[in-house]
Amino acid sequence: MIDRYTPECMKKLWSDEARYERWLKVELAVMESYEAYGLIPKGYSDLARKNAILDDKKISEVEAQVGHDVIGFVKVATSNMGDEARYFHYGLTSSDVVDTSFSMAIVESANYIISKIDDLMDSTFALAQRYKHTPVIGRTHGVHAEPTTFGLKVLNWYDGISRGKERLTAEIKRIGVGKISGAVGNYANVPPEVEKLTCEKLGLAPANISTQILPRDLHASYITVLAIIGSEFERIATEIRNLQRTEIREVQEPFTKTQRGSSAMPHKKNPVNCERIVGLSRIIRGYALSAMEDISLWHERDISHSSVERVIFPDTTSLIYFMAEELNRMITSLVVDEERMRSNIYMTGDLVFSERVLLKLIENGMSREEAYLIVQKASMKVWNNESSSLKEALKAYVGDIDLNDAFDLSCYLKHVDDIFKRFEGRD
Amino acid sequence: MIDRYTPECMKKLWSDEARYERWLKVELAVMESYEAYGLIPKGYSDLARKNAILDDKKISEVEAQVGHDVIGFVKVATSNMGDEARYFHYGLTSSDVVDTSFSMAIVESANYIISKIDDLMDSTFALAQRYKHTPVIGRTHGVHAEPTTFGLKVLNWYDGISRGKERLTAEIKRIGVGKISGAVGNYANVPPEVEKLTCEKLGLAPANISTQILPRDLHASYITVLAIIGSEFERIATEIRNLQRTEIREVQEPFTKTQRGSSAMPHKKNPVNCERIVGLSRIIRGYALSAMEDISLWHERDISHSSVERVIFPDTTSLIYFMAEELNRMITSLVVDEERMRSNIYMTGDLVFSERVLLKLIENGMSREEAYLIVQKASMKVWNNESSSLKEALKAYVGDIDLNDAFDLSCYLKHVDDIFKRFEGRD
Amino acid sequence: MIDRYTPECMKKLWSDEARYERWLKVELAVMESYEAYGLIPKGYSDLARKNAILDDKKISEVEAQVGHDVIGFVKVATSNMGDEARYFHYGLTSSDVVDTSFSMAIVESANYIISKIDDLMDSTFALAQRYKHTPVIGRTHGVHAEPTTFGLKVLNWYDGISRGKERLTAEIKRIGVGKISGAVGNYANVPPEVEKLTCEKLGLAPANISTQILPRDLHASYITVLAIIGSEFERIATEIRNLQRTEIREVQEPFTKTQRGSSAMPHKKNPVNCERIVGLSRIIRGYALSAMEDISLWHERDISHSSVERVIFPDTTSLIYFMAEELNRMITSLVVDEERMRSNIYMTGDLVFSERVLLKLIENGMSREEAYLIVQKASMKVWNNESSSLKEALKAYVGDIDLNDAFDLSCYLKHVDDIFKRFEGRD
Amino acid sequence: MIDRYTPECMKKLWSDEARYERWLKVELAVMESYEAYGLIPKGYSDLARKNAILDDKKISEVEAQVGHDVIGFVKVATSNMGDEARYFHYGLTSSDVVDTSFSMAIVESANYIISKIDDLMDSTFALAQRYKHTPVIGRTHGVHAEPTTFGLKVLNWYDGISRGKERLTAEIKRIGVGKISGAVGNYANVPPEVEKLTCEKLGLAPANISTQILPRDLHASYITVLAIIGSEFERIATEIRNLQRTEIREVQEPFTKTQRGSSAMPHKKNPVNCERIVGLSRIIRGYALSAMEDISLWHERDISHSSVERVIFPDTTSLIYFMAEELNRMITSLVVDEERMRSNIYMTGDLVFSERVLLKLIENGMSREEAYLIVQKASMKVWNNESSSLKEALKAYVGDIDLNDAFDLSCYLKHVDDIFKRFEGRD
Repeated sequence: MIDRYTPECMKKLWSDEARYERWLKVELAVMESYEAYGLIPKGYSDLARKNAILDDKKISEVEAQVGHDVIGFVKVATSNMGDEARYFHYGLTSSDVVDTSFSMAIVESANYIISKIDDLMDSTFALAQRYKHTPVIGRTHGVHAEPTTFGLKVLNWYDGISRGKERLTAEIKRIGVGKISGAVGNYANVPPEVEKLTCEKLGLAPANISTQILPRDLHASYITVLAIIGSEFERIATEIRNLQRTEIREVQEPFTKTQRGSSAMPHKKNPVNCERIVGLSRIIRGYALSAMEDISLWHERDISHSSVERVIFPDTTSLIYFMAEELNRMITSLVVDEERMRSNIYMTGDLVFSERVLLKLIENGMSREEAYLIVQKASMKVWNNESSSLKEALKAYVGDIDLNDAFDLSCYLKHVDDIFKRFEGRD
Repeated sequence: MIDRYTPECMKKLWSDEARYERWLKVELAVMESYEAYGLIPKGYSDLARKNAILDDKKISEVEAQVGHDVIGFVKVATSNMGDEARYFHYGLTSSDVVDTSFSMAIVESANYIISKIDDLMDSTFALAQRYKHTPVIGRTHGVHAEPTTFGLKVLNWYDGISRGKERLTAEIKRIGVGKISGAVGNYANVPPEVEKLTCEKLGLAPANISTQILPRDLHASYITVLAIIGSEFERIATEIRNLQRTEIREVQEPFTKTQRGSSAMPHKKNPVNCERIVGLSRIIRGYALSAMEDISLWHERDISHSSVERVIFPDTTSLIYFMAEELNRMITSLVVDEERMRSNIYMTGDLVFSERVLLKLIENGMSREEAYLIVQKASMKVWNNESSSLKEALKAYVGDIDLNDAFDLSCYLKHVDDIFKRFEGRD
Repeated sequence: MIDRYTPECMKKLWSDEARYERWLKVELAVMESYEAYGLIPKGYSDLARKNAILDDKKISEVEAQVGHDVIGFVKVATSNMGDEARYFHYGLTSSDVVDTSFSMAIVESANYIISKIDDLMDSTFALAQRYKHTPVIGRTHGVHAEPTTFGLKVLNWYDGISRGKERLTAEIKRIGVGKISGAVGNYANVPPEVEKLTCEKLGLAPANISTQILPRDLHASYITVLAIIGSEFERIATEIRNLQRTEIREVQEPFTKTQRGSSAMPHKKNPVNCERIVGLSRIIRGYALSAMEDISLWHERDISHSSVERVIFPDTTSLIYFMAEELNRMITSLVVDEERMRSNIYMTGDLVFSERVLLKLIENGMSREEAYLIVQKASMKVWNNESSSLKEALKAYVGDIDLNDAFDLSCYLKHVDDIFKRFEGRD
Repeated sequence: MIDRYTPECMKKLWSDEARYERWLKVELAVMESYEAYGLIPKGYSDLARKNAILDDKKISEVEAQVGHDVIGFVKVATSNMGDEARYFHYGLTSSDVVDTSFSMAIVESANYIISKIDDLMDSTFALAQRYKHTPVIGRTHGVHAEPTTFGLKVLNWYDGISRGKERLTAEIKRIGVGKISGAVGNYANVPPEVEKLTCEKLGLAPANISTQILPRDLHASYITVLAIIGSEFERIATEIRNLQRTEIREVQEPFTKTQRGSSAMPHKKNPVNCERIVGLSRIIRGYALSAMEDISLWHERDISHSSVERVIFPDTTSLIYFMAEELNRMITSLVVDEERMRSNIYMTGDLVFSERVLLKLIENGMSREEAYLIVQKASMKVWNNESSSLKEALKAYVGDIDLNDAFDLSCYLKHVDDIFKRFEGRD
């Protein structure tokens, strides 16, 4: 966890303190469940709750001695208990506690992230609405293609982010499971009904089946979904970076009054926040691979996933949260230059209308092949500065066919409202 | 595509021939839709269908000349057409055809894979049922933990595979979209209703919004799901490999009468098929990364994803299909040695019952801490060959506490049926 | 291996036929070595060479039957031999043959690649020389920074490619090892001197120590080096793509007379070849991961690396070769617009000279802080169209300080020759 | 940086404090160089050194305000200076300072790692020596192959580690470069001789050519080399894990007197340290991919690599250091059971001598094919418990051929000393 990119909520969520609290929550829920089934003396879970001690430092000390974190935790937690201590962690294996509470933490992390994604969706949709009809050149291969609107560009971002949210929501359901099934998952010393009731108390579903642990495809799936969301954020950030290029300059990241872009060149205003988002998405893609390598554990479990998860879960969830927040900040305050968007469309004269001309010629009875060759030839003259405009260059080939309305922006805007209508109810 | 790992159905699905056939299907569906809306002359789509020519070789020749595959395709396809040629590919951009038909191919690939996964689920469930109550030692960290049953082990595989199927089924729905929205996705020259009708004809849903292409998070998501499925296969294959170790020898891959395991050592029977599955899963994890890097394209599209997809889609779908088929073959004919499973449980005397003893002592009023230290101390004597069994070693510490029923297998089997019941309806 | 991206030399190198030929070469070299040490009858290696039969089809048939490729090969190869057959593959394990000949193939692949890299270095250096002094704007963060020359840009590519070549050359030395050490690497049935002599005959060094196989860090290292070279190619291709943007248009990929850029928009000329290079580099990065996962094999070897290598070695070497060839083609015929390069420098008036102004002011006694704020304030006026130029905007702040020579290009060119001199001897 | 895996030296090396100190070192070296060439007033570098202020907190404050870390640093560092402040950071761009000092840090990190690798090589070589002649079964595919010695196994580890050290040493040379070449790398405001002298003072070589920054293939290459080293560590850790399996139990991780293996099962002693090493290697492989994605930056630089490097350099170097240290601890105190190694060899009777028998039969004039089929048939009888030993089973086939010395261990040991001799001079 690098401080710079770690939000407070994640710092807290993944702290030792919070982890021990979750562990205690699980242990106590298990005791309550035992009690509910009459398997341990009545009142013991209350006693345990009252007498439990959580002390990070002491736990660390015992852990250092016994080489096992849960044993450290159990020893410290029960150190002030009476007879109820005998039924604390009773019939459990460490992973019953660790994995079940890990699912709780993951769900919590996902909910934090979703709240940031919701903010981002709001600002993105608002931006799309604001520039719904603002013409902008569409670019494919980095080369001018045909006009579209800036609102559509941004609506496309919105759509991508919302797919991310959908995936994340589906993951919450998948990972929202616990296991209280003992050392190898066969309930040798804790009955299935205790698992069921415990999970219910903790807001989780019981796993269909488990080994000592929950299966790691659940965790890998969560991280890959975050990696895909991160890559989607990267797509948006890359678009902003590209549109902020000096030669394009259609949008700009917000730049504060006291901000400086370069220690050497006082004129600089750089899209550094978007560049950072791009970088961070690379880290998460790498983590996705580590997470997938964790799936194939040996037999009823080996612990090789544990060190991986200690790093990638706090890091990935923090980074995605941070990226969503940053992107939201960018999008909320994005500086948009509508004038420049319009003038860029005409930067190449009227070349970007070439498809419309092609279709006009076909409608006028020309074959696609013939029409294409004519429009291409005329276009190349414009590219080569041998003609001032496509319209001009075409004259030599098309005789008196009236091509005027091929050079009109309206055609590119006429279905914008139709597309936005699909997202109705959203605002 | 490496021949060795490519099934016939995938070879066909990803062939140039099949691709051109899908492209034609899309082009004709678009013409039908235009016709349905009265936008092109009646009967033209039928004419086009009748006169269309698909000739791989000629298409390749034109492609070499114009440097564009779809243009090559359109030129050849329309080369025998009359006036209807003018409305072939009318108002479309290449990606309308390529991306929509790519979704069709992906869905088809997923369905092939699912049929193999279904076979695998059948054989896995049958294996689980067959050895439902067969005791086997559960291993954590590669070290004996507690007894469980071989049926439970296999049922856990089944559960993992079925999660894979669920994910894949969800992906089919996501990727099952087409786009007929033109060069930058704003329907400048083809109306949204044509997209809607065309997609319907092709068994797809129209995308909410598109650029020149469909968003690549859809494709990345498909590949990552296959990578997770591959990693799950790897987990199963790794388990078989481990159980086939000479020292364990509880299961064996089928070994044919004429098979030879080594050119040097005639005694060898190696789990080579499972090792191959493990290797192939590594390739797919790598492809997942490539797929995720494809998401962040520039502006309304750049074509950098295309070369990636030409490699990873045929390869990944072939490999997963091949792996499912191979794994199914392994599981169907797996040689299981129940006798050895049972004797391995007792390989360390009675050490694997240590948790039961611990709990017995706690039930008898001992504190967890005290009980643990006693059982650990006694266990270490057994590990160090200072005592012949845990039961023996404990005598010095526990006095007359009766621990006999701690050393009984039945406790580890008592909930097996409960677990299997959760999968009822399955068989 | 996808046909589209596989050069003939690699197709041949990685064919079954070539593989069997290499195996035979190793087997015969071993026999010669045995003979040299008097361990088998004189003349037997010659007999074996004369009587050896290589028949792909038959080998495949036997392989299908025995489930082992080398056994298939040995059976067919010796099928026409007399008594010398007894000493064919004598004392060897399959991997002695397979791994040693694999190293030969890898070295050969590397040499093919290096020959293409040499071509690419030639064309890149020539391009750098040609535009050594052509001013172009340097861009950081996509935003105009300070002028530099196009020759320097390209020389930087050259330097990157040459580092790639150096790394590859180092890898050849590392991977250029063989092992003839038997089933577990201890020379139980073949003496070390046979390994030494055999390797010598094959142009390899003997491995320091081996298990059944050569250690896989060698192979992973080779693939990661290719992935880094691929990423370097991607950097160059990305630069060309960016410089070909409509708004920048300083360079263009060659575009043939009959080429077409889009099926819909006849005006398009897209950097598709460079985009493809970018895509292919993503695949190779993925393969690097698979290769690294191959390192950690079990005990004296498991065969999980084999299926991985069957895919990634032919693919990676083919792709890098193809990319080098394509990039060379791009660079050789790159269309460079020097006029546009010059005019782009002045696109923002004289903002790009801001650092020179800053330093002038400091030289004139102003503090860095004060000078920075002044130049930044003036620059912002130019960005905001409140002033026509930095020089103009500065007047209000700097009084009579003469800043004229801050706005001169020569300063950015004065060390160009010094830098090129470092690469002298190159041409 | 996760505390648990971060050694003190790395914590310090990558701290803000140390970073600022390195920056200052670079800035002052530049001033000294300027002074040496008479470009700034004499004595100014001394003054700057004396008056420079480094205050993390203040720097953070200014950074928050200006959005730029180096500007924050320069403002604070010069806040107590006199006129010499004008020549602090004079003619430099931030990356001159940041990247040059980053190389210094990387080299330092590499040296720390090498010192740990040296320790590890010592302990590994000592272990190899200690068990040089201890017979152990060699395993391929997890199945018994032929005997070898434990010393050879470990010597193979040693060889792998030493290749890692070689690679790392080569990387130090590559990454050990600085750049003081200004905003776009053309020495517009700082002459090449200042770069040269500065780098010399800092123990670096000047880069051949640079943009605003050093090329990122250098950094990617460093991380991939660490990933390969990590994977090699994983190989060793995996071997220990496998040899510690209950069924094999030939070695064991050290287990302290107060250690506990499981909260549930007091009998457990698990190879958790080696499992952790395996997990950590997964993280580093993921980082390798992030590092390679950093190579393809835009134009003269974009800053997307920066956030990646802030995470992966501290993490990767810390993890590798930690892993080397841990592995060293494991290897130094590895518990080796020679008795069990010997008895495991004979676990399958005498099957593991099958190749020796095969060769004996060939030597006796039998064809390879015939001999193989006989030995395989006999071996299968042993596997199937139809015969008590290979020697016994063979009797029916081989008549009076004397096979006795085929069943002798000495053959597998006879070249052990030869192999060790290659590493002579080492100890």
